[in-house]
Amino acid sequence: VAAARRSLIVVSNRGPVGYARDEDGSRVARRGGGGLVTALRSLVAHHDVTWIASAITDEDRVVAAEAGGAVEEAVRDGSPCRLRLVPHDPAAYDRFYNVIANPTIWFLQHYLWDLVRNPNVDPALLHAWDDGYVPVNRAFAGAVLEELAERPDATVFFHDYHLYLAPRLVRDARPEAVLAHFVHIPWPDAELWHVLPEEMRRAVHEGLLANDVVGFHTERWARNFRRSAEDLLGEGALGRTHVTAHPISVDAAEFAHLAETEAVLQRERELVARRPERIVLRVDRTDPSKNVVRGFLAFELYLEAHPEAHGGVVMLALLDPSRQDIPEYAEYLAAIEREVRRVNARFETDGWTPIDLRVEDDFAASVAAYKQFDVLLVNAVFDGLNLVAKEAPLVNERGGVLVLSENAGAHEELAEWVVSINPFDLGGQADAIHRALAMAEGERERRLEAIRERVRSHDLEWWIGVQLSDFDAAAARRRAAATAG
Amino acid sequence: VAAARRSLIVVSNRGPVGYARDEDGSRVARRGGGGLVTALRSLVAHHDVTWIASAITDEDRVVAAEAGGAVEEAVRDGSPCRLRLVPHDPAAYDRFYNVIANPTIWFLQHYLWDLVRNPNVDPALLHAWDDGYVPVNRAFAGAVLEELAERPDATVFFHDYHLYLAPRLVRDARPEAVLAHFVHIPWPDAELWHVLPEEMRRAVHEGLLANDVVGFHTERWARNFRRSAEDLLGEGALGRTHVTAHPISVDAAEFAHLAETEAVLQRERELVARRPERIVLRVDRTDPSKNVVRGFLAFELYLEAHPEAHGGVVMLALLDPSRQDIPEYAEYLAAIEREVRRVNARFETDGWTPIDLRVEDDFAASVAAYKQFDVLLVNAVFDGLNLVAKEAPLVNERGGVLVLSENAGAHEELAEWVVSINPFDLGGQADAIHRALAMAEGERERRLEAIRERVRSHDLEWWIGVQLSDFDAAAARRRAAATAG
Repeated sequence: VAAARRSLIVVSNRGPVGYARDEDGSRVARRGGGGLVTALRSLVAHHDVTWIASAITDEDRVVAAEAGGAVEEAVRDGSPCRLRLVPHDPAAYDRFYNVIANPTIWFLQHYLWDLVRNPNVDPALLHAWDDGYVPVNRAFAGAVLEELAERPDATVFFHDYHLYLAPRLVRDARPEAVLAHFVHIPWPDAELWHVLPEEMRRAVHEGLLANDVVGFHTERWARNFRRSAEDLLGEGALGRTHVTAHPISVDAAEFAHLAETEAVLQRERELVARRPERIVLRVDRTDPSKNVVRGFLAFELYLEAHPEAHGGVVMLALLDPSRQDIPEYAEYLAAIEREVRRVNARFETDGWTPIDLRVEDDFAASVAAYKQFDVLLVNAVFDGLNLVAKEAPLVNERGGVLVLSENAGAHEELAEWVVSINPFDLGGQADAIHRALAMAEGERERRLEAIRERVRSHDLEWWIGVQLSDFDAAAARRRAAATAG
Repeated sequence: VAAARRSLIVVSNRGPVGYARDEDGSRVARRGGGGLVTALRSLVAHHDVTWIASAITDEDRVVAAEAGGAVEEAVRDGSPCRLRLVPHDPAAYDRFYNVIANPTIWFLQHYLWDLVRNPNVDPALLHAWDDGYVPVNRAFAGAVLEELAERPDATVFFHDYHLYLAPRLVRDARPEAVLAHFVHIPWPDAELWHVLPEEMRRAVHEGLLANDVVGFHTERWARNFRRSAEDLLGEGALGRTHVTAHPISVDAAEFAHLAETEAVLQRERELVARRPERIVLRVDRTDPSKNVVRGFLAFELYLEAHPEAHGGVVMLALLDPSRQDIPEYAEYLAAIEREVRRVNARFETDGWTPIDLRVEDDFAASVAAYKQFDVLLVNAVFDGLNLVAKEAPLVNERGGVLVLSENAGAHEELAEWVVSINPFDLGGQADAIHRALAMAEGERERRLEAIRERVRSHDLEWWIGVQLSDFDAAAARRRAAATAG
C-alpha cells in the first residue's frame, strides 16, 4: 500500500545514529537497531523523516556543532533520514536521564516506588527537574521549532516519557502544527501521579495534552490517562486531544529471517547440545518491573510441588543487565543472583541445575532460545506492552506456551491464547508453569498458531498505518476547525 | 432532633465492650473509647442497637459461649446496647487480622507496598485468606443473619476493611435486608487492586456491592471505588448500590470538656514549663502511612534553611506505637528513632533539642499538645480522613496553623484554611512549616476559626444524621422496588 509521501519529524531521546571516534581518530557512525528504530523503519523508508534526538556522546556533540542543524544520514537498513542531534549540557542531561526519566518517572509509571521510603521530592530532585528535565525538553522543543520552520506541514511525532514537556512548548509557538506523542510505557492512575508535586504532575499532563494525538499500547493505559488528565486538570482537560490505543508490534518476516542466520543457528546448536527435557524461558532486561525475582520464587514453588520435574525442567533466564549506574537496578540484579544461588543450592543434583542464569546482552542467544522454549514466562509487575511476548512465539519450534502477566500490555491482545498470571501471585505462577508444561500438544500448537496469526496480521506495518491514519484525522480536524474559524 | 427510634445492627471487628478476668478471677468488662465507639455513641444512645464484634480475648469467648447470642450491655457512656461477640478459631483470627487485614489490605489501600518485593501472594497468604479472612467473615455473616431473624427490619451497618466479604453472604440469604457499609480508609484505584489475584479482588468488590449503601469519607475515595468496581466487575457493576461520601467527624463539646480535665491540665502545665518558643506538633500512630520519617527529613530541611529557628522551634512528635507485632511496623518505628537521633545529633545545642520524640500512648498529653501547638503537621502518605486534623484545632489556644497532606481525606473539607502539602515533597513541607510559623496572627486566627466552624457544623451528630438519611433512602428504594415488583 503505497501511501502518499509525508513529511515527518520524529522526536525521541535516543536516535537511530550516534557517533564515536575510532582508534585512528576518524569518525564512526553507529547505526542502532533498538526498539524504536526498528518500529519506525518503514516510516523512514517510505517518507521524508527528520529525526531529532539527543547528542549523547562527545562526538555527537561535535557533529551537532558542525551541522548547526540536521545532517543527511542513513538508518541501519540504508534508508535516508535527516538527523538532528540536540546538544545538552552534560550535567543537565545526566539529571534529566538518571534522576528524572529513570528512575523517577519510569518507576512511577510502573508502580515500582516503595512509597513509605521513596521517592523523596527533595532539593536534589527539584534541581534535576528545573535544571535537567525542563532544559532538555526546552532544547528539544527549540530543535522541533527550527525544523518546523523549514517544513511547516510536517507532522511531529514525539516518543515516550523523556519528552513530556516539549509538546506544550512547541504548541505555544505553533498553534496550527499537527503534534502526536506515543507513550511506550504504562500509564498509572491519577492517585499515583500525586507522588509528584502539583506543579510537576500538571506540567506532565499539560505537556502531553498539547498534542493532537496521544497514543498508548492498550485501552487500559489510555483510559488511565483520560482519567488522570481530568482528575488533575479538571473536566474537559482532554480538549481536542485524541487519546488512542494501538499496540506496537514486530516485523514477522525479520524474525523468520533472523531465526535462520548463522549467529542464531550457532547459538541454537549450543543450546540444543545441553538442553534439558523442557525449558521454561524468560528473556528480559534486569529491570525491577520485569519481576525476575518473583519468577524464581514461583519456579521454586513449582519444583516443590512437582518432584517429577526435577532433573528434566530448567528455567533458562537470559537477562540483559540494565541501567546498572542506578542503585535500585544494581540492587535488583544482586537480588536476582542471590535468589538463583538459593534456589539452585536447594534443588540441584549431579547433572541438573534448575535455574540457568545468563546475565549478558546476546540477542542471537535470545532468538535461539525463542526457538527452543517449551514455556515462555513473562510475569512483569507492569509493562507497557512487552515485545518478547510477540517475538518469541513467531519463531518457536516446540509448541511453546506463553505464560503472560495480566499487567503486561500485550495481555490485552493475546489473553485468550495464553496462560494468564497475576504477577504477585507466586502460587498462581507455579500452577501456570505446570499447566503450560502439561498442556496437550494439539492445544499448545493451536494457541501458538493463534498468537502468530494475531502478530502477523497486526505487525509493525499495521501499527505504522494506524499511526498515520491518526495523524491524518488530526490534520483533517485542524483543517475543519480552521475553515469553520 | 429526636428522630424515630430505629433498630440497627452495627458490625465491626472490634466492639465497644470486651471482657477479661481480674486477679481474683471475676469477670471485668472493658468499655473502650476507640474511634468507632465514639463515632457511634449517639446512635447507641438514641436507637436500639445490636453490636456484633469479634470475641477477641479468652473471656470474650467465654461470654459468647455462655450467651449463645447477644448479651445486654452498656457502652462507655452508659447507654444500653445489645452486644453479640462472634467467636473465631484463634489461629483463623490471627491469619484474618495479622496477615490479611493488616498489613495486606491496609497496605494496599494506603499505597504502602513496595511492589518490586511485596506482597508475595504465596501459599501462606492464600491460606490466610481461605482459612482466615473467609471464615471470619462467614462467622460475622452468620451472626448477622441470626440477629436479622429476630429483627427483620433492622438496618445492618458494616464497618471497614475487615468485613468486605460478609455483606454478600448476608445478602444471599436476605435479599430484602437494608445493608450499609462504611469504609474508613482510602480507596485506591483499580490498578492497585491488581495486586490481589482476580478471585480475591472480585470477592472484595462483590462483597461491598451487596450493600445498598457504601460510604466513604471523601468524593475522591468514592470515585475510586466506583471506577474500580466497574473496571474489575464490568460496566453496571454498581447496580443498585449507592456510593456516598460523608466525612466522619468529632464531638466538639467533648473536646472542649476534655481540654479542661485535670489530666490534660496537668500535662499542659508540664508542657508549658518546658515549652520552646514555637512548637511544630505531630500526633500519630507509628504507622508507615503517617509518613513520620519524611516529616523529620522536612524539618531537617527547614532547620538547614532557617538558622534563626535554631534554639526556638521544636518538633514535638507524640507517637502511639502501633502494631509492633507486624515486621513492617517494627521496622518503621526503628527508622523513626534512627532519623530523630540523626537530626538531633546534627543540630542540637546546649538547651535545645530540635525533635522531642515521645513514643507512648498518652491521650491526655496529646490533648495538652493540641492546645499548645503553633503548627500542626499532618503529612500522611494516604489517610482515609485523619481525625487529628479536626480534633486539634478545636482546642488550640495559640492560633495554631494546620499543615495538611493533600492525600488526607480531611483535605477535601479543610483545604482552603490549611497550608497544603504534598507528602512526598520534603522541600514543600519545609517551606510550609516556615510559612505557617511566619503567618500573621490575624490570618492564623481567621483560618483556625474557620476550621473550627466547619468541624462544629459538621460534627458527629451531623455525620450520624446523614448516615441515617442514606439508610432511609435505601429503605425507600427497596419498598418502591417491592411495590413495583
